[in-house]
Amino acid sequence: MALPFTLEAQEPAGQARAGRLTTAHGDVLTPAFMPVGTVGSVKTLTPDDLTSAGADILLSNTYHLALRPGVGTVRAMGGLHRFMGWSGAILTDSGGFQVMSLSPLRKITEEGVSFRSHLDGTAAMLSPEEAIRIQDGLGTDIAMSLDELVEDGATPEQVRGAVDRTIRWARRGLDERDRLRERGGGTMALFGINQGGTIAAARRRCFEALEGMPFDGYALGGLWVGEGKALGLEMVAHDTAMFPSDRPRYLMGVGHPVDVVEAIARGVDMFDCVLPTRNARRGTVFISTGRLVVKNAAYARDERPLDPACDCYTCRRFTRAYLRHLFAAGELLGMRLASVHAVHHMIRLVRDARAAILAGRFAAFRSEVLEKFHSGETLEPAAAGGA
Amino acid sequence: MALPFTLEAQEPAGQARAGRLTTAHGDVLTPAFMPVGTVGSVKTLTPDDLTSAGADILLSNTYHLALRPGVGTVRAMGGLHRFMGWSGAILTDSGGFQVMSLSPLRKITEEGVSFRSHLDGTAAMLSPEEAIRIQDGLGTDIAMSLDELVEDGATPEQVRGAVDRTIRWARRGLDERDRLRERGGGTMALFGINQGGTIAAARRRCFEALEGMPFDGYALGGLWVGEGKALGLEMVAHDTAMFPSDRPRYLMGVGHPVDVVEAIARGVDMFDCVLPTRNARRGTVFISTGRLVVKNAAYARDERPLDPACDCYTCRRFTRAYLRHLFAAGELLGMRLASVHAVHHMIRLVRDARAAILAGRFAAFRSEVLEKFHSGETLEPAAAGGA
Repeated sequence: MALPFTLEAQEPAGQARAGRLTTAHGDVLTPAFMPVGTVGSVKTLTPDDLTSAGADILLSNTYHLALRPGVGTVRAMGGLHRFMGWSGAILTDSGGFQVMSLSPLRKITEEGVSFRSHLDGTAAMLSPEEAIRIQDGLGTDIAMSLDELVEDGATPEQVRGAVDRTIRWARRGLDERDRLRERGGGTMALFGINQGGTIAAARRRCFEALEGMPFDGYALGGLWVGEGKALGLEMVAHDTAMFPSDRPRYLMGVGHPVDVVEAIARGVDMFDCVLPTRNARRGTVFISTGRLVVKNAAYARDERPLDPACDCYTCRRFTRAYLRHLFAAGELLGMRLASVHAVHHMIRLVRDARAAILAGRFAAFRSEVLEKFHSGETLEPAAAGGA
Repeated sequence: MALPFTLEAQEPAGQARAGRLTTAHGDVLTPAFMPVGTVGSVKTLTPDDLTSAGADILLSNTYHLALRPGVGTVRAMGGLHRFMGWSGAILTDSGGFQVMSLSPLRKITEEGVSFRSHLDGTAAMLSPEEAIRIQDGLGTDIAMSLDELVEDGATPEQVRGAVDRTIRWARRGLDERDRLRERGGGTMALFGINQGGTIAAARRRCFEALEGMPFDGYALGGLWVGEGKALGLEMVAHDTAMFPSDRPRYLMGVGHPVDVVEAIARGVDMFDCVLPTRNARRGTVFISTGRLVVKNAAYARDERPLDPACDCYTCRRFTRAYLRHLFAAGELLGMRLASVHAVHHMIRLVRDARAAILAGRFAAFRSEVLEKFHSGETLEPAAAGGA
């Protein structure tokens, strides 16, 4: 059960690609931005809001769902799609990142990661096999391998060890999926994750091992963790040059509009990031001309929508003045309306990039987006009392 | 500029009425339930959500809006309807209740209520005239007179003083509206508020004074403040028997489904209450068979909607299991989806009451609703750990 991926266009003098993934829950147009539904909802938004924003795929967090409500409940309710009322595609992470960032007392061994729930302290083990079984239980369309992350600044020895383990765990995850398939499950696609930090040779070594494994796609892991954008983009270009052109490429955790456009230019097909929606809930949104701090007193009587160039529900219906008031007053509707814009804005960005690639004008699109983004609204929040 | 009120039907052997208010922002069908948009939004909901729920009027809080964003801003943004994107009717309270319940250091004199903002301590005075000017500035369709409230358990002397002042302030409010009209403003309707606590004679004395004043409608004030439902309903019947049949009657702050039906049976036309939406945000909703505590562990795998008899967006799209998960996980979407149901449920209730009155079968409707409400789902929250 492969994950059909049709490459529809590639930039003539560059790496940007437009494609289409076919899943059991509809087609996913690439480049794709996946809104993040951490705990079974993209915070404040309904599935219909996501559909209205043009989303055809979202990302959900295995670790969070496994702890609450638990895979048994999700499975009993007909799987994650049905449970949350989402008919589009779902990609789940392996749970590894959250185990390592949220769980106290985590310990990595060859077997897997032992950890304690950040909710109630329950001890558990996430092995490469268990990560696959959980994702299968959730009913995901695209699962991710469990990998070992290294932090920015890791020594070459640490990177080497993590790459070795990532390779072994990748194999074990694939084997587990085979076992599930023998029992009629495991229909999901599975992506391998390339590691190696910012050591190009390590990333090459990692991929040379993963390349021989029957993954449906490849993710670029361990980037945007503090290494700086220039180095991050260098690694992106390095990885995509090795990756097979007929499989989707997913840059994990990247969602700043500029980074997304630059990574598309380097051949990336898929993105996810909580940044746009998390920022939105805190009152800062990306718009086509930059970053807008909604609560700024300068907008108290501003009749314009958040982004005059945007056609999202929020921008069609409400003024900056109203949004500013909602945030100043702590009204939950502000978080919701800003989130609607945030998701719409990112999906619109990748859709526009896709259209530009298909039309053979991606280079111009890239220049325009970057120039416009750096042109305008970057007012800082008003000083105390400005609220 | 009167507020046209058409009485379309009255219960043959009772007091329940079906009517229609005509405002500059559309007709309001009565009995009406007004969702409360305290600070410029019905928490978590958009104006379109309210329209989908069938709302044709909402209540907004003068005190909150006057403090933030301020009447000047609302007026500069084209009035409250335009500011919040709501095209239906708006009723504003006078601000008196919030001044007295939220403001520290409030002091009532004949001139008005001096108080300090609960937000920043700024000193201000709310006089009967200022209450009218603020509501006019907000652009409300229906304004309320400033009245003096007494708490449950007030002495007859306190009640007498509050009634006297309420009468004098009512006159001053009307005079202020006249002055605004001479200057081309004050197009809003204005309701007088009957006071007198639970002393029937005091309420009669209050109304005998208000009756001679050109109010567009009458509110029943000072009830549901701890006096008990039986006594409250007795006062409701007492007031509505005095009130003119050709003006709308508004029971302030009442919103429990059973109380609403009982008050409709006693001739009330309009209601507002934060209870259904506040409860909803805390995970308890009214459904046709009672009160449902969404977070209860019993619903963890319950495939049913909150209320199988409800056709709101939430009940059409999501299970109790999903809602229960959202509340257990603290997801904001839970508050939103429960609020959608809560508003829809109350408006559906008054619409069904209206249909029953028009069809001459209100008595049967009342029995059915009450019997059904007390029949079913009243599970208490699970003990600690059930989440």
